Formats: sequence, C-alpha cells, structure tokens
Amino acid sequence: MSGSTGPTDRPVLALSGGVGGAKLVLGLAQVIAPEALHVLANIGDDFEHLGLAICPDIDTLVYTLADLADPQRGWGRRDESWNFMAALAALGGPTWFQLGDADLAMHVERSRRLRDGEPLASITAAICRRLGVRATIWPASDDRLRTHVRTSDGWLAFQEYFVAQRCEPVVEDIAYHGATQAQPRPEALALLRDANLRAVIICPSNPMLSIEPMLAMPALRHALASCAAPRIAVSPIVGGAAIKGPTAKMLRELARPVDALEAARRYAGLIDGYVVDTSDAHVARLDAAGARVIAVPTVMREGASKERLARECLAFADALAARRVDD
Amino acid sequence: MSGSTGPTDRPVLALSGGVGGAKLVLGLAQVIAPEALHVLANIGDDFEHLGLAICPDIDTLVYTLADLADPQRGWGRRDESWNFMAALAALGGPTWFQLGDADLAMHVERSRRLRDGEPLASITAAICRRLGVRATIWPASDDRLRTHVRTSDGWLAFQEYFVAQRCEPVVEDIAYHGATQAQPRPEALALLRDANLRAVIICPSNPMLSIEPMLAMPALRHALASCAAPRIAVSPIVGGAAIKGPTAKMLRELARPVDALEAARRYAGLIDGYVVDTSDAHVARLDAAGARVIAVPTVMREGASKERLARECLAFADALAARRVDD
Repeated sequence: MSGSTGPTDRPVLALSGGVGGAKLVLGLAQVIAPEALHVLANIGDDFEHLGLAICPDIDTLVYTLADLADPQRGWGRRDESWNFMAALAALGGPTWFQLGDADLAMHVERSRRLRDGEPLASITAAICRRLGVRATIWPASDDRLRTHVRTSDGWLAFQEYFVAQRCEPVVEDIAYHGATQAQPRPEALALLRDANLRAVIICPSNPMLSIEPMLAMPALRHALASCAAPRIAVSPIVGGAAIKGPTAKMLRELARPVDALEAARRYAGLIDGYVVDTSDAHVARLDAAGARVIAVPTVMREGASKERLARECLAFADALAARRVDD
Repeated sequence: MSGSTGPTDRPVLALSGGVGGAKLVLGLAQVIAPEALHVLANIGDDFEHLGLAICPDIDTLVYTLADLADPQRGWGRRDESWNFMAALAALGGPTWFQLGDADLAMHVERSRRLRDGEPLASITAAICRRLGVRATIWPASDDRLRTHVRTSDGWLAFQEYFVAQRCEPVVEDIAYHGATQAQPRPEALALLRDANLRAVIICPSNPMLSIEPMLAMPALRHALASCAAPRIAVSPIVGGAAIKGPTAKMLRELARPVDALEAARRYAGLIDGYVVDTSDAHVARLDAAGARVIAVPTVMREGASKERLARECLAFADALAARRVDD
C-alpha cells in the first residue's frame, strides 16, 4: 500500500464496522498515506468466548489492511486451517463460533495481553505494527461496550443473535450496554477537534450494529456533532437492500424505511455529505436530513472499486470544505 | 484395545507421569480389560500458559490411550498442524511452549470447563469418554500441586526449568507446592483400601518429577504404605542412564546414585516388588530396600514390548500376592 499524495497527507478519520466498512478503509489506505488514516473501530460486537477476548470488527480491519483477510468468507484469515475446531468438536466443546487455527492466535495473544493489564488500543497498535499495518486502528473505546438485541425471545447478546441464531429472530430493540460510561479513544476526540483534519468518513457499515454503538458514547457523538472538518457518510443500503448482512431485515423489523436515505436520517446533525449508489441517484435531489447528497458507484466488488469510492469520498469532503470556506 | 481376560478383571492402579509411564499404561490397557485399569496421573507439571490450563502428563496419557499420541515427539498429537504457533510468532506472542492446533482444543476446552467450576477429574473423565478411552485416568488431585525446581538461578516453576530452559540449570532442590494441602483423588484412596485390588504399579517415570509429586500428598503416601495389594515399581534407570528425559542428570546433580536400584530406595516402604531391566540383572540379587527384584526387558521400543512388560508386572504382582497368602 502506498499513499498517492505522500506522507504529509492531512489526517482522515473513518468510523467503521467489519466487512463493508473495511473495504472502504482499505480503499482509503490506498489513496492517502496510510499514516494519515485513522480508523475508529466498532467494539459493540466484541465478546468473550472460550475464555478469549474476541473483537470481530477490529480483526476484520486488521486482517484487511494486512492483506490477510479471506475475501470470500468475509471474516477471518485466508488460507486458514480448521484443525482446532475439528478437535474441539471431537471433545464436545462449543462449536457455534468458528475459529481458524491462525486466527486463534490473534484472540489468544490479545487475551493474554489484556489479562496482563494492557489496554485494548495499545494491544491493537502493537499487533498492527507486527503485521505491517501502517494505518492507525483505534478500538472505539478501551472500555466495555456491548450491543444487545431484544427479540421475541428476549434480550440476546450480539453474537448470540448474529452468529448462534444467524440473525433469524425478529429484532424489537437494540441497546448498547456500557456506552454511556465508556470513554471514547482520546486521540479520536482530539482528531475531531484538530483544525488539520481533512475529513470524517462514516463507512457503509450497518448503522445500528456498527456505527451507532460508537455514537452511543456521548463524548464521541458530541465531538462529531461539533467537528469542523467535513463529515461524510456512505449509505449501506443500495437499491432498497443491504450489500451484505442483516441491515435491511433489521430496519424492516424496526419499522424503519429500507431506502438509501435511511442512514442519512439516522446520522442527522452529524454529517455534511452523504454518498449513495448511482442506482439510487433519484434520491440525490432529496433533502438528506440537511446533508448534501452525491451518487457514485458504492458497491465495492473488484479491487479498484474500493480505491475509486475512497477518492470520491475525499473529493466530496474537499468540495464541502471549500464551499464552507467560500461561505 | 481389548482385555485378554474380560471385563471382570480385578482392578489395577497405576501411578504414572508422561511418556515412559504412558507406554506401560498402554501395555496394561492391552492385557487387562481397560475398565479395570485406573491411572493416577501426575499433576506436578501442570501450569497456566496463555490463559490455558495445561496438564502435560494427563494429556500424554489420554492421547496415548486414545491412539492419538505422536510417538516420535513424545508429547502432543500426531498428524498435528502448527498454524496457531506460526501466527502467534508473527504477532510477537510467547512461543517457548509449543502448542499444536488440535492439541490446543484440549487446553481450551479443559480451561473453559474449569472456569465453569467443573473439577479436573470430571473434565478428564468426560474427555476420555469422548475420545473412546475406556481406562480411568484420574488427576492425582483436583487441587493445585506444582513442582518447583531450585537451581543456581533460584527457584523455577517446572515448565520454566523443563521446557523454557531445557533442563539445563543444575538442580539443587525440588519442592512440590501445595502437596501437603492437596486432597488425593478419593477413588484412588478407596481403591488402595479395596481388598479386590490386584496390584499397584508405579510406572517407570521420573521419580522426582512424576511420582514423588503425588507421593508428597500425605494421604496418598499413607494409603500406598498401608495398601494390602502387591505394589510394584519399574525402574526408570537402565544401565546407569534414563531412557528419556532428565532423570539421570537430576540424580547426579542431587548427589544420588544413578543406578537401577535408586527408584527402589526412593520408594522404600511403598513397594513389595521392583522390576529392573535384564541389562541390570546383576542387581536382582541385591536388597532393594526390602522389595523383591526381578529383571525383565523394560525398554519399551516396539509395540509388543509394552504389553510384554505389562504382563511381567502383573505376573510378578500375582506371584507376590500368592507368596503373601502362603506366609
């Protein structure tokens, strides 16, 4: 990965969940100096399993930027082996959450360092250095913040809903346990106040499961609301459906519109610009809760599409900044 | 595995450490009904590593009886993969203790169940059932009992001495932390009092590292000392050397004789019969701290040698029992 404009690029802050978000983050790391890229990663999916601290979104971001991710499966590492899981199954252990042999090292090593008292952000930074990831990945907080989902079966911890029950139960409510007490990563708050910040980009992740757990931290929401840099969000809904995952299903169950403007409505007051897919160009003239809307190709299937969307987002942000200066 | 004399075999109790002991245990499981075989496994080597509860001797016994052991390496599973270790090394994690991908499942599952409050004996029994091991393997205790070794560098926890430092430091003293408080497996104590017990066999394991940690529990030593069944030990020293491991080196460092009778001296008052290798037949006429001595081939290299030694031990025990009845 090399930045096209050099290591003196102004910093960019991305807010991201897993797969979809990580694709745009990878694109950003390819079009600016990776040292200028800072990613605030969702921790609402984190959980303890088999005594291990598992951080699915951090890991997807790390593996994606380290070029270790499995692009087909959308989680874990490519060229993975599964001998641990097979042996665990033979012993009668819990197998509902798949852990590859090499991926397991990430969880074991992180858990070891957490037990030794090291904060998650410091561990994540060390792991990024070891794997050659030059962008900065910050856990949204070092504190505990957990997404829970109320279904007709009652409240479920996120992974219980997402993996064990395959998002099948109807969602009635969502809660972010610990969010009001959790302290957002201080460097992210500082960056949001930094006059040199080029843009904030909210990646096309599931708003309810990946972005709003972070925004449920009052200090982060406030810092984003009062940030002077242009703030862009990319719609995770294209043509009335989600690219991947349960976003559309959850919106329907929560009686919300499943359309390209829904994320803009949810982020009202927090974004200046909103990016929808060209197939949703008809909404570009509509008001998006006060944000300007552009339509560009947002579906990131092949390699160049990530980089192209990253360039579009940055150009859009730069244009919004210029307009603000003109005002 | 099938017993040659049927499921009504009288029970046998073996005391065993890892590799050498496990070979004789496997032989015993082949010549009596495995249901009649009860093994008290050393736990002095147990330790916590990477947040996992690791029980090397229990695992060697389980893998050996389940026909999963790696016969070359002497620990772990055969047909093992090492992708976890490679990934852990890439992350900068500790790699001094090797853990295979499939072997890791054993430690993760055991640790999970221990955290849930299940005793080690119950977990071990469940794992044996899952892996088709019909003999009973008891941890010497469910309580904590840890071997520590004093060297010129000070006291070292066992695995620090054994694996990390490769038994290189000179041993000045050995201590079994927790032994006086640990409660031996009650079923083993009951078996030692059982009039139906056919024999106690102390396997050719390192006395100081594998057998004496167990005997350091006062209740076990007392039960063995007052056991009415014939008690046999097999010498771990053959021709002035140990078959494997640091036994001879440690005896020298502790200024003890490295000869075939040394284990008999150490077990004085606890054994009635003592088995040395044919190459040490010259000691068979000597007094072995009150025990009768026989010389038979004790080196278990090929498959049949384990079964042959097991038969010799049982025949010796039966002869000692008959002699006692004649008295």
